[in-house]
Amino acid sequence: MPALRAALLQSSGRPGFTADNLRLLDEAAARAAAQGAGLLCTPELFLTGYAIGADVAELAEPADGPSAQAVADIAVRHGLALAYGYPERAGERLYNSAQLVGPDGARLANYRKTHLYGDFEQRWFTPGEQQVVQAELGGLRLGMLVCYDVEFPENVRAHALAGTDLLLVPTALMEPYRFVAESLVPVRAFESQLYLAYANRTGPEGEFTFTGYSTLAGPDGTAKARAQAAEDLILGDVDPALLAASRAANTYLRDRRPALYGTEA
Amino acid sequence: MPALRAALLQSSGRPGFTADNLRLLDEAAARAAAQGAGLLCTPELFLTGYAIGADVAELAEPADGPSAQAVADIAVRHGLALAYGYPERAGERLYNSAQLVGPDGARLANYRKTHLYGDFEQRWFTPGEQQVVQAELGGLRLGMLVCYDVEFPENVRAHALAGTDLLLVPTALMEPYRFVAESLVPVRAFESQLYLAYANRTGPEGEFTFTGYSTLAGPDGTAKARAQAAEDLILGDVDPALLAASRAANTYLRDRRPALYGTEA
Repeated sequence: MPALRAALLQSSGRPGFTADNLRLLDEAAARAAAQGAGLLCTPELFLTGYAIGADVAELAEPADGPSAQAVADIAVRHGLALAYGYPERAGERLYNSAQLVGPDGARLANYRKTHLYGDFEQRWFTPGEQQVVQAELGGLRLGMLVCYDVEFPENVRAHALAGTDLLLVPTALMEPYRFVAESLVPVRAFESQLYLAYANRTGPEGEFTFTGYSTLAGPDGTAKARAQAAEDLILGDVDPALLAASRAANTYLRDRRPALYGTEA
Repeated sequence: MPALRAALLQSSGRPGFTADNLRLLDEAAARAAAQGAGLLCTPELFLTGYAIGADVAELAEPADGPSAQAVADIAVRHGLALAYGYPERAGERLYNSAQLVGPDGARLANYRKTHLYGDFEQRWFTPGEQQVVQAELGGLRLGMLVCYDVEFPENVRAHALAGTDLLLVPTALMEPYRFVAESLVPVRAFESQLYLAYANRTGPEGEFTFTGYSTLAGPDGTAKARAQAAEDLILGDVDPALLAASRAANTYLRDRRPALYGTEA
C-alpha cells in the first residue's frame, strides 16, 4: 500500500470572512496537490476564524451547507481529500466541528468536538456526544478530533482501539502551551501507535495568540513534519510500512490490561 | 505545606550482589539527606540488578524480608523515606515490586508491577493485580508504578483520579527509548497533573543498555531535575503550591467525560 502524503495548513486565515478562507483553502489545496499530497488538513474553525465572538452564530452552517459544497468543489478541483474545521449549525445548536471530504467531493465524516475549551467555546458550542468518528481513505482508517480533545489520552486511545491509522486534529493551540504541540502530540502518537496530524492556527487573533508548531507525528514518536511559528504548509508521508513495523515493535495495545482499568475495552 | 525534596538515584548498582547494593543505597541516602531530601527513589530491581537471569529467583525476598529490614535501617539512619525496586518472593511466585519505606522505617506501601516488559520479565515474574497503590508522606499522597507501567496513560490517570500527588517510578528504560524519559514522562505529569519521579538504571548490563536520563517531572510539564547518561543523584522539589496552581490552570481531570469513555470514573 503506498504512503499517503498529508499536508497541514498552518494559518489563521482571515477571521470573520468565510469566502476569503475558502479562497485560502483553494490556494493551499493547489500547493499541496502540486507537492503530491492526497490530503490537506486545516486548523480548527478555519472557515470562519476562531476569535470572532458572536459572529460564530451568524457564520455557522450545516454540515451539508454552502461552504461544505464549496469545500467539496475544491477537493474535486485539486483531487485530494480535505479535513477542515468549521462551526456547524444543527437547528438551534452550534458545534465546533471538523469534516472530512474525499477527493471526489463526498462528505466522508463529520466530528463534533467533545471536549470544549475555555469560555468562548463553552458559551457558544454544544459538546459533541460521539467520541470516535472515522472514515476510510486510500486503505487507511482516518479519525478526527479537535484541539483540546487530543490532550486527553482517553480520546486517542479510543481511536487506536477502533483501528485509526491517521488521526486528524484541527487545532487552535494558544500560548503558552507550545509544549502540547512539541511534546504531547508526539507522545500521543507513540503511546497509541498511530499517525497524528495536528494543524494549528498561528499568531495573534483577538485576545489569543496561537502558537503554530503544527506537527505530523509518527507512531515512532518523531515529528515527520513540523512548522515553526510562521504561516506555513507542511507535508509528510503517512507510511503504512512504518506503521506496521512500529506496531510490531511497540505492543502497547496488546499489552494493555483493561480488566485492571475498569474499562469496557 | 513545605515542599518535599525528592532525590532520584541513577545507578545500576552491582548486579547480582544485594549486599553491595544495600551499601550503595546507604551511601546515596546519606548524600540525599545531606542535601535536604525527604525521599530517595531508586531504579527498578535495584537491590539485585536487572539482567541477572535465573539469579532473580535466588535473590528474591518477601516484602518484609531481611533486605527490607536493611532498607528500613537505612531510612531510619538518614531520616528519609526510601522507594526501591526489588524482586519480591510470595510463596512460589515472584513479583517485580517497588516498596516505600518511611523515615521511621515503617513499610508504607508495596506495589507489584502490573505491566511486565519483555521476555526476561515475562519468564520470571507474575504480573501484579492492583493498579493503584498509595501511601501518605508529609501531607502528600504518593503512588508507585514500575517502568513499563508508566507508558500506559491509563495507569497514571488512575493515580491522578485517586489523588496521587507524586508518582514514584523505579525504571529500567533501555536504548533506544530515551524518548520515554525525555518526552513521555513529562507529558504524563502534565496530562494528569502530578509530579512524577522516574529513576532509571544506566549503562550496559548483560544484553541491555540502559539509557539513564532519570527525570523528576512537574505537573507543568517541565523537568524539575534531569540526569544525563552518567551515574548520578539528582534532586528536585515537589512543591504543593505549584501543584495546586497547575491543577487550577490545567483542568484535565475536571474536563474529562467518563460517560463517553466507557469507564467507571
